[in-house]
Amino acid sequence: MKVVRVVEYHQNLQLDEAPEPKITSPLDVIVKIGAAGVCRTDIHILEGQWADKSGVKLPYTIGHENAGWVHAKGDAVTGIEVGDAVILHPLVTCGFCRACRFGDDVHCENSTFPGINVDGGYAEYLKTTARSVIKLDPKLKPADVAALADAGLTAYHAAMKAAKLLRPSEFCVIIGAGGLGHIGIQVMKAISGATLIVIDRNTAALDLAKQLGADHIVQADDSGSFVEKVLPLTQNKGAEAVLDFVAESGATATGIKMLRRAGNYYVVGYGENINIPTIDMISTEINIIGNLVGSYNDLVELMALAEQGKVKLHTTEYKLEDFQRAIDDLSNGKVRGRAILVP
Amino acid sequence: MKVVRVVEYHQNLQLDEAPEPKITSPLDVIVKIGAAGVCRTDIHILEGQWADKSGVKLPYTIGHENAGWVHAKGDAVTGIEVGDAVILHPLVTCGFCRACRFGDDVHCENSTFPGINVDGGYAEYLKTTARSVIKLDPKLKPADVAALADAGLTAYHAAMKAAKLLRPSEFCVIIGAGGLGHIGIQVMKAISGATLIVIDRNTAALDLAKQLGADHIVQADDSGSFVEKVLPLTQNKGAEAVLDFVAESGATATGIKMLRRAGNYYVVGYGENINIPTIDMISTEINIIGNLVGSYNDLVELMALAEQGKVKLHTTEYKLEDFQRAIDDLSNGKVRGRAILVP
Amino acid sequence: MKVVRVVEYHQNLQLDEAPEPKITSPLDVIVKIGAAGVCRTDIHILEGQWADKSGVKLPYTIGHENAGWVHAKGDAVTGIEVGDAVILHPLVTCGFCRACRFGDDVHCENSTFPGINVDGGYAEYLKTTARSVIKLDPKLKPADVAALADAGLTAYHAAMKAAKLLRPSEFCVIIGAGGLGHIGIQVMKAISGATLIVIDRNTAALDLAKQLGADHIVQADDSGSFVEKVLPLTQNKGAEAVLDFVAESGATATGIKMLRRAGNYYVVGYGENINIPTIDMISTEINIIGNLVGSYNDLVELMALAEQGKVKLHTTEYKLEDFQRAIDDLSNGKVRGRAILVP
Amino acid sequence: MKVVRVVEYHQNLQLDEAPEPKITSPLDVIVKIGAAGVCRTDIHILEGQWADKSGVKLPYTIGHENAGWVHAKGDAVTGIEVGDAVILHPLVTCGFCRACRFGDDVHCENSTFPGINVDGGYAEYLKTTARSVIKLDPKLKPADVAALADAGLTAYHAAMKAAKLLRPSEFCVIIGAGGLGHIGIQVMKAISGATLIVIDRNTAALDLAKQLGADHIVQADDSGSFVEKVLPLTQNKGAEAVLDFVAESGATATGIKMLRRAGNYYVVGYGENINIPTIDMISTEINIIGNLVGSYNDLVELMALAEQGKVKLHTTEYKLEDFQRAIDDLSNGKVRGRAILVP
Repeated sequence: MKVVRVVEYHQNLQLDEAPEPKITSPLDVIVKIGAAGVCRTDIHILEGQWADKSGVKLPYTIGHENAGWVHAKGDAVTGIEVGDAVILHPLVTCGFCRACRFGDDVHCENSTFPGINVDGGYAEYLKTTARSVIKLDPKLKPADVAALADAGLTAYHAAMKAAKLLRPSEFCVIIGAGGLGHIGIQVMKAISGATLIVIDRNTAALDLAKQLGADHIVQADDSGSFVEKVLPLTQNKGAEAVLDFVAESGATATGIKMLRRAGNYYVVGYGENINIPTIDMISTEINIIGNLVGSYNDLVELMALAEQGKVKLHTTEYKLEDFQRAIDDLSNGKVRGRAILVP
Repeated sequence: MKVVRVVEYHQNLQLDEAPEPKITSPLDVIVKIGAAGVCRTDIHILEGQWADKSGVKLPYTIGHENAGWVHAKGDAVTGIEVGDAVILHPLVTCGFCRACRFGDDVHCENSTFPGINVDGGYAEYLKTTARSVIKLDPKLKPADVAALADAGLTAYHAAMKAAKLLRPSEFCVIIGAGGLGHIGIQVMKAISGATLIVIDRNTAALDLAKQLGADHIVQADDSGSFVEKVLPLTQNKGAEAVLDFVAESGATATGIKMLRRAGNYYVVGYGENINIPTIDMISTEINIIGNLVGSYNDLVELMALAEQGKVKLHTTEYKLEDFQRAIDDLSNGKVRGRAILVP
Repeated sequence: MKVVRVVEYHQNLQLDEAPEPKITSPLDVIVKIGAAGVCRTDIHILEGQWADKSGVKLPYTIGHENAGWVHAKGDAVTGIEVGDAVILHPLVTCGFCRACRFGDDVHCENSTFPGINVDGGYAEYLKTTARSVIKLDPKLKPADVAALADAGLTAYHAAMKAAKLLRPSEFCVIIGAGGLGHIGIQVMKAISGATLIVIDRNTAALDLAKQLGADHIVQADDSGSFVEKVLPLTQNKGAEAVLDFVAESGATATGIKMLRRAGNYYVVGYGENINIPTIDMISTEINIIGNLVGSYNDLVELMALAEQGKVKLHTTEYKLEDFQRAIDDLSNGKVRGRAILVP
Repeated sequence: MKVVRVVEYHQNLQLDEAPEPKITSPLDVIVKIGAAGVCRTDIHILEGQWADKSGVKLPYTIGHENAGWVHAKGDAVTGIEVGDAVILHPLVTCGFCRACRFGDDVHCENSTFPGINVDGGYAEYLKTTARSVIKLDPKLKPADVAALADAGLTAYHAAMKAAKLLRPSEFCVIIGAGGLGHIGIQVMKAISGATLIVIDRNTAALDLAKQLGADHIVQADDSGSFVEKVLPLTQNKGAEAVLDFVAESGATATGIKMLRRAGNYYVVGYGENINIPTIDMISTEINIIGNLVGSYNDLVELMALAEQGKVKLHTTEYKLEDFQRAIDDLSNGKVRGRAILVP
């Protein structure tokens, strides 16, 4: 089958032929890829940033946001049939450790991550297990939802944590209305009555935010003076929650200034350090909350929102063979919404 | 001032003159009534059903859903000024007991309830305290929100409890789309991603439910066979939550059949007994959750939803002097939405 | 192997020979039984009370509280080895349904229950799966903990729910200090700072309760007048939580009278109906909470408490062949602590 | 009356005469001081560290951990009588803001802090309000509990947050077994079944920790290599919770290494910065939780634990006039337990 692989770090991806994956264990599932999201992490992989963490051996196939159709399945797999449209939870988890048993499967003690440390979805077929496939409602097509499998799922997971604590009359600042942020806004509108204040540097992103239901939009700039525009929107008390989808270039230091006493700062993006005096944390009793991708059950819930039309993803399709163009467009900020590769 | 009072049980209300209330304590607030909701409980009071529970001495002024303008205030009252439009939390609470300090002020150990056990709002002026007044946003008029002070607040409180546990892809059955139910539907749509299945006997109520965002509507009847229509809507597993705004005429027995394993049954209405074998409660591990009117903070939140246009109340105005017509219309099922008396 | 089976309802159990269970699936585990608890449910099974619910075909082997040593295991089982001492979670669950993935595996949509609807542990060997075995700390022997697998786990699960909400200065009434109740007391002392008031009819049970750390003990009788002794212990406000391990012979009606406003009533025992006016539930805003056996993770936690010496079980051993004497002793109230059968 | 005041920063406290406080508002309470705790913050005040934050005008009386007897009370104060022994919540709060109404009174929008920004308890009498006094059980004397009013309350508040999430079989690392830490240990033992691992540099502190119920003790040193001793105690997975009562001299960087995936780091002490790459926070999904002093209800609960003998404070008494010796002893690390001044 055709695969797009990392053959060397600091070198372009390469289109290759590779053998199709085979069922070797009773819970295995082989998925015919319908679409694979193209993510900034893919670029970071090529730059070698993940080489040590993943420990993966080259060459290997990347692509960690995948949806498609069941192509083959092991003897013990029930509840799905060959031909079913499915989205894939990004991790392959064990189901037996304490974390898996509590539903925190992203903290599985024995997981693999297709597209990161084993072969992923820039390919015609991908191997996963029964623990990671979710059957799609007939309304949803693999190409429509593939990019929700990781980016969308991360935004959902963080927004759900915030929404569970927020109440009407309270405020949520969202920093960044890009790939993750625009999903986060839709999720917050669907599950929370909090007032949303969305911050971005980009006017097009802010227009989209407004259209998706943001109650207030504020343009960010290098001066940080936009904080003075945000606080009055919160009765000068700050927001009960800040969802930071950026977390680089000074976003966290500015963001924490917009937090109310006893507020929660949700770190979703990454890049810089959180650097804050402990006296500031205790005198205001604020919390800094880490966020990883969501669980399997989270992804089921996000698919329900997608099916109900409450969460929509804007995508730009590329043929699998055009992978280089997709990567280049992403690098150059030319992708509208999320890029997906379609075999 | 003019007041409408209970002078004898099993006898009509009577229009009287009574002295205006005076400030006697530094936290007192006298409110000029802008509107007072007419509630089925008022009819029950006249029937003597509350005589023993409230222990009130006749004659007294009823009316427990009140909004208006600050007319006078004690020396220690801050944050509001004479002339401010306000809605009144239905209870007058102490602020010092454990419940008040936890925000569960409806369980205050030393409260009074104007309109139930002390003079209420079928009058030109009402006396309450600084603990019970909420300043209204300029967008909201007393007459628009008065009936949210008790009926709406009860619906909000129960819906918020349910919403805090529900997740997208899960189901919430709402029994009764009347006075409380139609507020409950709006609140659930504003703060939850759960799928709503609304049940009522009345087609007009169901039409309204649909218009307010119900995902499914099902007509109830005496046979109870509508349960067979509800279950398939929940993948034949039952709903994670049932909000019962009726709780009489067999609603609870039928309602519990629609509950999923480990589900929560929220009792809001009242009339009949919950009567269920303990073996059924433990083998399915369901919970029966009691619900009273909401707290002061709940009412602040409900006002935020009202101000944002997410919760709207349909009201029919009567002059205070026309109280008998309002009561009669309510008794005869002729009121559209909620009746309010305007002095 | 030797098994003790139900051959006919309303007839004594029978000692038989049966083939040893075999590994047929990669996650199967065969356990050599070290001890099996004898439970009142076993008597109810013989009386035919579970015939319809379980749908089991006779003859079959009962025994649903089991511990022992791993005898054989399927290819895919990791983390335990042949010879390891283990306790068995009472259910065999799928691991793939929403409930299993959330850690609520007792609500698994595809479970079996050895000893109830498939062959159980009154035998030399029992078949379960990798999802249900927990390796024991070397300090714990199968015979010491077997009876914690169901009775103890149920008590733990309910006590944990209560403890998560209770705070120091608050009160917890425990109704029944017998098999489950005496575990419940130990768990509450280990994980909660609430004041415990234990109620039982039996003075020996009350003495044990006191010894296990009950702060107050109150003897129950038919008159129900002991409620008047309990309320003053709670500052005449009632308890924030009531754990009812009895729930028959009027326990629930009396028990609910001991509940504080906004309190939680945990139903663990079963027998009678909960029968309560909805107006009483809403005017005090109380909750009735159903409780089933605990999850796999709950059992891991209970084993931690047992290993730390915080929960101890009093047991009386019988040889497997002496099953009839164990059953008779239990029927006649002659068992001290919990009876176990040892092959 | 005699008072001990700050007359100038960077200068010793001074014993003075000042007029007794008077009741000026109906909710005022004048307390005859029974004991006032001596806290490191008092030294920091003298060093001028709080000059800007508090904005207090010199001279003023310090002392923010106070207990005594009601000396006089305003007309509207109920539930306590002159002569009652009381402990004082450290803040004087409004009772009307959203935070107060939710029980988060330490985040009151209109509070004062006797001993910090208004006159405190190094005096014969102190003025507070009905919102801040808690009547003591007859078993407790003001001198026994005064130092729980701030230091103990802070430890309780943080430990309660941690305990609400921890479950048996899980681990809690406590960094620092000094003034706050040794209260934290006692609280954790009283309300949680988690395994406690206590870290300190001081062997006497570790001995005390062991005696108070620590499951493991580990001596800290400059090398940070003690982390390698802690991890094996947690099955090499890290602790679900770390309570850091130190948070200076590198404690946080070392402490975070002992945290499990999805774990919570509770910052109680202060001094250094939290400085952590956002990628580390998101890849492990950890949380950094700020902690301030506890609420009024928290203090009620802590008094219940004290009354039940579950929390004990070691104190060293000094006469009020000997304030300088107390301050010097504290500065020189010579105080055993907590120093208190007794007028």
